[in-house]
Amino acid sequence: MSIRDFKTINKRLQFIEENKKIKLENIKIYPPDLEKAQFTNCENMIGAIQIPLGVAGPLLINGQYVKGDYYLPLATTEGAFVASVSRGCKAITQSGGVTVAVEDVGATRGPVFKTSGIKESQKFQKWLDDNFHELRTIASKTSGHLKLKKKGVFFVGGYVYVRFYFDTKEAMGMNMATIATSAIVGFIEANTAIKCISVAGNFDIDKKPSWLNFISGRGKKVWAEATISGHVIRETLKTNAQTIHNIWLSKCMLGSIMSGSLGFNAHFANVIAALFLATGQDIAHVTEGSVGITTTEVKDDNLYVSVYLPDLMVGTIGGGTGLPSQKDALSILNIYGEKDSSLKLAEICGSAILAGEISLLASLAEGSLASAHERLARQK
Amino acid sequence: MSIRDFKTINKRLQFIEENKKIKLENIKIYPPDLEKAQFTNCENMIGAIQIPLGVAGPLLINGQYVKGDYYLPLATTEGAFVASVSRGCKAITQSGGVTVAVEDVGATRGPVFKTSGIKESQKFQKWLDDNFHELRTIASKTSGHLKLKKKGVFFVGGYVYVRFYFDTKEAMGMNMATIATSAIVGFIEANTAIKCISVAGNFDIDKKPSWLNFISGRGKKVWAEATISGHVIRETLKTNAQTIHNIWLSKCMLGSIMSGSLGFNAHFANVIAALFLATGQDIAHVTEGSVGITTTEVKDDNLYVSVYLPDLMVGTIGGGTGLPSQKDALSILNIYGEKDSSLKLAEICGSAILAGEISLLASLAEGSLASAHERLARQK
Amino acid sequence: MSIRDFKTINKRLQFIEENKKIKLENIKIYPPDLEKAQFTNCENMIGAIQIPLGVAGPLLINGQYVKGDYYLPLATTEGAFVASVSRGCKAITQSGGVTVAVEDVGATRGPVFKTSGIKESQKFQKWLDDNFHELRTIASKTSGHLKLKKKGVFFVGGYVYVRFYFDTKEAMGMNMATIATSAIVGFIEANTAIKCISVAGNFDIDKKPSWLNFISGRGKKVWAEATISGHVIRETLKTNAQTIHNIWLSKCMLGSIMSGSLGFNAHFANVIAALFLATGQDIAHVTEGSVGITTTEVKDDNLYVSVYLPDLMVGTIGGGTGLPSQKDALSILNIYGEKDSSLKLAEICGSAILAGEISLLASLAEGSLASAHERLARQK
Amino acid sequence: MSIRDFKTINKRLQFIEENKKIKLENIKIYPPDLEKAQFTNCENMIGAIQIPLGVAGPLLINGQYVKGDYYLPLATTEGAFVASVSRGCKAITQSGGVTVAVEDVGATRGPVFKTSGIKESQKFQKWLDDNFHELRTIASKTSGHLKLKKKGVFFVGGYVYVRFYFDTKEAMGMNMATIATSAIVGFIEANTAIKCISVAGNFDIDKKPSWLNFISGRGKKVWAEATISGHVIRETLKTNAQTIHNIWLSKCMLGSIMSGSLGFNAHFANVIAALFLATGQDIAHVTEGSVGITTTEVKDDNLYVSVYLPDLMVGTIGGGTGLPSQKDALSILNIYGEKDSSLKLAEICGSAILAGEISLLASLAEGSLASAHERLARQK
Repeated sequence: MSIRDFKTINKRLQFIEENKKIKLENIKIYPPDLEKAQFTNCENMIGAIQIPLGVAGPLLINGQYVKGDYYLPLATTEGAFVASVSRGCKAITQSGGVTVAVEDVGATRGPVFKTSGIKESQKFQKWLDDNFHELRTIASKTSGHLKLKKKGVFFVGGYVYVRFYFDTKEAMGMNMATIATSAIVGFIEANTAIKCISVAGNFDIDKKPSWLNFISGRGKKVWAEATISGHVIRETLKTNAQTIHNIWLSKCMLGSIMSGSLGFNAHFANVIAALFLATGQDIAHVTEGSVGITTTEVKDDNLYVSVYLPDLMVGTIGGGTGLPSQKDALSILNIYGEKDSSLKLAEICGSAILAGEISLLASLAEGSLASAHERLARQK
Repeated sequence: MSIRDFKTINKRLQFIEENKKIKLENIKIYPPDLEKAQFTNCENMIGAIQIPLGVAGPLLINGQYVKGDYYLPLATTEGAFVASVSRGCKAITQSGGVTVAVEDVGATRGPVFKTSGIKESQKFQKWLDDNFHELRTIASKTSGHLKLKKKGVFFVGGYVYVRFYFDTKEAMGMNMATIATSAIVGFIEANTAIKCISVAGNFDIDKKPSWLNFISGRGKKVWAEATISGHVIRETLKTNAQTIHNIWLSKCMLGSIMSGSLGFNAHFANVIAALFLATGQDIAHVTEGSVGITTTEVKDDNLYVSVYLPDLMVGTIGGGTGLPSQKDALSILNIYGEKDSSLKLAEICGSAILAGEISLLASLAEGSLASAHERLARQK
Repeated sequence: MSIRDFKTINKRLQFIEENKKIKLENIKIYPPDLEKAQFTNCENMIGAIQIPLGVAGPLLINGQYVKGDYYLPLATTEGAFVASVSRGCKAITQSGGVTVAVEDVGATRGPVFKTSGIKESQKFQKWLDDNFHELRTIASKTSGHLKLKKKGVFFVGGYVYVRFYFDTKEAMGMNMATIATSAIVGFIEANTAIKCISVAGNFDIDKKPSWLNFISGRGKKVWAEATISGHVIRETLKTNAQTIHNIWLSKCMLGSIMSGSLGFNAHFANVIAALFLATGQDIAHVTEGSVGITTTEVKDDNLYVSVYLPDLMVGTIGGGTGLPSQKDALSILNIYGEKDSSLKLAEICGSAILAGEISLLASLAEGSLASAHERLARQK
Repeated sequence: MSIRDFKTINKRLQFIEENKKIKLENIKIYPPDLEKAQFTNCENMIGAIQIPLGVAGPLLINGQYVKGDYYLPLATTEGAFVASVSRGCKAITQSGGVTVAVEDVGATRGPVFKTSGIKESQKFQKWLDDNFHELRTIASKTSGHLKLKKKGVFFVGGYVYVRFYFDTKEAMGMNMATIATSAIVGFIEANTAIKCISVAGNFDIDKKPSWLNFISGRGKKVWAEATISGHVIRETLKTNAQTIHNIWLSKCMLGSIMSGSLGFNAHFANVIAALFLATGQDIAHVTEGSVGITTTEVKDDNLYVSVYLPDLMVGTIGGGTGLPSQKDALSILNIYGEKDSSLKLAEICGSAILAGEISLLASLAEGSLASAHERLARQK
């Protein structure tokens, strides 16, 4: 008997318990509605993992799509993290809030084709230009929620890489993008002599850190900034603007340079991970969200701080967003899959990341990073 | 009233519900034991996010630390994923199992110091060499579970970056590493004229993709390999060795090169994310785990496949590993925080990733990636 | 007295000889016409460095701009190099020649501007779009040989980076591009409140290896390919197709990946350096020319080889191209600064690099790299 | 008749002239001693390319190996360049000179071996450790001027990359390193079952930009620094410390980051190219020399500037260093291939690069970059 032969969560759970001679009491506890996830989100489902959910905030956000005070739902197992983001929210809100902007780059899929060599690659490149309108029509037929926005074509010898950018509305969109690309590939193969080697040729480039996504953008590009007043830096963050700036320069610039990194920031990944978990995003995309730049500037005794996220893959429908607890978390943000809700979520991500950066840089400035962990470590 | 003023999960939950005028019914449902997470894992806790948990396998593993058939606990919200890894497990197990090896590089912390310039930087470098034994003693005093293994020193002008490598036994170890580094920094500042700018100078480099970690390793280095027989490739994977090899070359080599990526693989990040979620790892480390190389070779009609993970941060105590459902998942792997259990977990990660790579490359070869998603999309 | 006070080559030479108490007999020997270089190419000129010039070939080239047999002028001080390229030329020519293609991306200059923050950066981005036609007019006024082709704009917080692409006809064009950009910057500063921090903000990015140039291209993009017949591989290269392919995979793919390189090739830099020296190019651009990809494929017992150069900065007027010996070398290639001559030179560079790649990979295959150097070393 | 059939420079020249129906008058003019280069430096030699040689300086250097005033020989065809470096020399010398330090990392060669898989790769790694003393002995036998210093071993599946570091005394050393590695490989193949795929597996990594060389160093590591006084910045450089610092931050940090570059500097490549040409270095190594970091700091109204070159390949014997004019240029630096002369040359390179960085950053600050080129362009 294989686990695939059992048709209910309980039967599968029982099978594993017997096979491993263990009792699994905790993964059994989840909302009844989560059961349907076995058909759409998770094959061979035997239960659920529970991640503690905290809230940071309120954070005053001044975006194009979101405006007002927000509580951030953060799912994490790492002590001190929610408290740290909360402190950042406080400093920003006391200083008048965060300004945030977003650009919709689109989900990308990057198939690779094979030609006989340079000349055929060039011809194929031209064919793609000439037939772009047709490809767009074919893509649109695969879903009413998807549009082919643009493409980029690069080739080396007989390998031709095409990067399709799709507007996928409120969905993160990789499944739709894959299905649309598959239809496009079918059309290409039917109408040219060119064969597709792989519908996904790592030119998307999905779930891997890359300069292509850093430079060309993927999903959403987000910028956020705030100017923390000298008073708030002293009272709330217990340090001063120049010290934070010096740390930023030695850590987020020179330190990341010396490390050959694509993350010129303090800890984007922590905030991305917690927000993605809470709101039902694809956790593998934490990889892409960790890439980006933080900047600081001393202005009198105030500190201007900005973050830039070139590669943020988020959505408000599909994936884990419809699961019970994730829906709860989205409702804390007042997001329900409606128009522009993925842009809203992107602006909230950028704002939250700014709060995280400010707080961690300040902790390093006042030398409290280790002591915070020490305090927590003693409690355990 | 601020959320920080409430002292119980329920009170905080109620505060958010009232503030946002919503009802949050699903995040309330979790095992009673999870409540203590509010003191150690998650400040301002208001409930829990549930992630569906599936199992893939059995996977026959032949490692230095793990041997035998394993069921892999995978927490995910992405349909088709568990089924895909399962298929990879089947193909490997039918072909005699996966061979896996691990090397313990250590948790790293990378403070940055400031000197007056090149000459003092050189002197400081020598001082660090001369006093390494003393630094090791100081580090050991901060925890009985930690040892300073080695260090690397790099400087540019007056900025001196030191990368400390720690043996942190079964813990992933970043908290211990931070506390130990803080103690070392205190000793340095007390015994030299050199000031530390930041205890964490992005020379660790923690939770960001980087060539330094790729080249020098971080946490655990893991290698895994299997030779899939021609028969299994045909029957289970519905394709052939040469087609998979061609896809690998155009995708994991040339495609990743054309994208300027550090991930020369098909989808390490998906498997890392699901295993990390299930076993209570720090999800922000998915970023580092996505980096690495897959190779394939055609041997007659068989396919040799290997993966190399230079930067895998895992532990079996601390963080989320002690939470109720995560403990359940670890018990499926027969891991209980005992000696060498973090090496065991690393070997399991490497083996699971190999299964994921084989299955996705085969899907691309048979052209079923889109159709799998299409089938699932229709169900939703 | 300073060296700047002397007005002739001889006087300056004499000054150095007296100051250093040495005799410099060899740098005195150069064609009379080279003297004028002191006014246009080299301040404080005291003489000339002579680099031995060899020729490789003939190489049969089938390009869009060059067709026929070419002798390649190669200036080098590294023994065995010209002989090696010659062997590559022979193998290619015996196999029917090289196919080569070129795309004119343009010279780039990338100034950086400073705004008050995100909102002003967005407005400036829009202003640049709206006024692009005007910027183009201004650029054209600075030179009849220059046209602004397109631009890319990227910002992080208040730092706005603009990448201008110029068509500079037969010139490599950096001086023209700088002058045109300076005029554009003047117009921007006069018509907006935005200040330019630096006319060259490393977003060009000039004379440094970069993923931006790799991905977006710079100067010329060149592709070249040839299929070496099994017979020629055996007789001329003394090896076989599969062995070369295996070396390529382990060296130009996996080896460069393991090294975190942008050069996925055997030795582009050697050929670029020798051709650039001979033809009066800016030698600092060797840096950019070293970046790119070589591919190989076994087809029966033949070997298909291709090279891709995304970042080749060449010109046939300006810089060193008008100096006496460099003009001689250009005349060997039948290039005189006429229309499309920079595209011709680019195609010749790509073809020569292909010859260099084939020969070195074959040397490694037959194990003769060390022995060739050993033989030469003994002669010295 | 092929060009290889002619045995003298004149005959070959005549052959090319007749074949191409051209006259080559200028490449004929070179010192008589250069003729021997046809046997050791350049096969198929037909003449010489002359590059104008200028001098910048004096530059006051305070190094470990060089001390005093130096005139820098710079061979270039790019107008304004020598004048620019001269200005940098003046500013530094007026401010008390440059402090410079060097570390001898060694020439590297990185062969790639093939094993049956992970287990054999691990065994081979151990064998290399156990037999390192023997390998060192074998290396030493190939040359009295070479010593194997250390090695690094990395593997992925069955591909094992070994990076050998050699002390090659005053030679740049790649030929010696290749011969020694070839001998080591012979020993390995004779004493193990492991085969070498390629003696040069791009793990050296030679003549390509790479993070491995950036992080681990190659050839020489050099650091140089100077503090330019406020008075000198105003009088000689016509700008101020803060403006230069702002340009550095937006260009060498953020600009290079936005470009995905390994060159966090203004124009290392220009200075490296001119010094390498003058002193007979391997010009393809300009690629590696372009990689590195410049830093600036405002101290009152003074400016501290430093450069870091992790990857400088230089030598004072072998290659082009013995050619007539190159010897002249080395004599200007008082370098004759004697003990520590390659370290001297490395310190001079670092010092010259610092002068180049200061001058270009100051030009950008005062806005004179375009006008300098404009002035020159008009002269032409």
